[in-house]
Amino acid sequence: MSEPRLVEVRRNVLKQNDMIARALRERFRSEGVFVVSLVSSPGSGKTAFLEKILTLLRPGHRVAALVGDLATDNDAARLKRSQAPVKQIVTGTVCHLEAAMVQNALQDWNLRDLDFLFIENVGNLVCPSSYDLGESLRLVLMSVTEGEDKPLKYPTIFNSADVAIVTKNDLAVAVEFDWSAAQANVQAVRPGMKIFRVSTKSGEGVDDFLKFLAAQLAEHKSTTPA
Amino acid sequence: MSEPRLVEVRRNVLKQNDMIARALRERFRSEGVFVVSLVSSPGSGKTAFLEKILTLLRPGHRVAALVGDLATDNDAARLKRSQAPVKQIVTGTVCHLEAAMVQNALQDWNLRDLDFLFIENVGNLVCPSSYDLGESLRLVLMSVTEGEDKPLKYPTIFNSADVAIVTKNDLAVAVEFDWSAAQANVQAVRPGMKIFRVSTKSGEGVDDFLKFLAAQLAEHKSTTPA
Repeated sequence: MSEPRLVEVRRNVLKQNDMIARALRERFRSEGVFVVSLVSSPGSGKTAFLEKILTLLRPGHRVAALVGDLATDNDAARLKRSQAPVKQIVTGTVCHLEAAMVQNALQDWNLRDLDFLFIENVGNLVCPSSYDLGESLRLVLMSVTEGEDKPLKYPTIFNSADVAIVTKNDLAVAVEFDWSAAQANVQAVRPGMKIFRVSTKSGEGVDDFLKFLAAQLAEHKSTTPA
Repeated sequence: MSEPRLVEVRRNVLKQNDMIARALRERFRSEGVFVVSLVSSPGSGKTAFLEKILTLLRPGHRVAALVGDLATDNDAARLKRSQAPVKQIVTGTVCHLEAAMVQNALQDWNLRDLDFLFIENVGNLVCPSSYDLGESLRLVLMSVTEGEDKPLKYPTIFNSADVAIVTKNDLAVAVEFDWSAAQANVQAVRPGMKIFRVSTKSGEGVDDFLKFLAAQLAEHKSTTPA
């Protein structure tokens, strides 16, 4: 395996990514937008959850979203139903978003018009973990149907995230989801990590998350240059 | 982005992988073992399905499994309940198995003792697609809880696979899974692809898949050198 050379090239790509991410973070701060990214397995319910959040935030807040996928703009079409501005980033064969893709997508956006910008990453529990996108908050989603062991099996992505969201809680009984085990597994990998348990379908837990987001925004605004 | 240089290095890694995979395939053929790999998202039910298959095949066939994960040997522990020989490959931060990892894991195995060898890949719908492991049959699993659109959103991995398995069919009604849409999406990406619809929990569809596997083995044996 020529792993070492690949690792070296990857390190350079990551270094460059970090520089762009730093510039993005500075731009987000100076233009006063709070940026939240979402990572998860394919099919964990990122898009459905985000559509719900955009719809519920919209009456009181100015929101927008970027969404990454290898192929198709299906997710952008779904998110647009929330009436929020949405832009699709098609990554081709790349299994994660990179800061440069975000920078490029936002080139002609006036971020001062926004309170929240959400960035939905490609569905993948490995690749996105090392790519900083300049976000202020990274959410890692896991659905109850995936089982309780995901934090132990994909520790790096849980470590790269700030908050865990357990989705599809309406199916918890059907799949005999063990909430205590899931919590213990998250804490084993990332002690003190905040966890929300939600169902986009029933709405359960969504309000708690919205309150948390509002508090995060308030804190962010208080440190934003006038 | 220094993508082009990364792409070049990746191409060399893949070339080397293909060479090792070719040698593995030759070894599998000459030692008369039929090798089946499994790819899917994290939490699609690969391990549960494979445990079922190993358990049901064991009375009549000699079976074994390799299982890849970034961290933990939880899956190997689960698969060992089938009483089949199982070996874990821990990939660290690598989001897929490579032929060299398989070669290394099988170094001291006598494959002539086996009818079937199963290789469970890391849970990922992107990275494993370009890595040939020398297998004769690649299964791509998608669970009903992930939604019907996965083939459209991850076309490369569906194209790299021979057969699709729709898992967790016991939850199909609860998640309002649209079977016709899922079939159409698979066919749009990979026309003519064989699809099985199974529930590991209820056992539905598993017999059909076992019959298919037995037929594949018979065909393979008929072309194996004596």
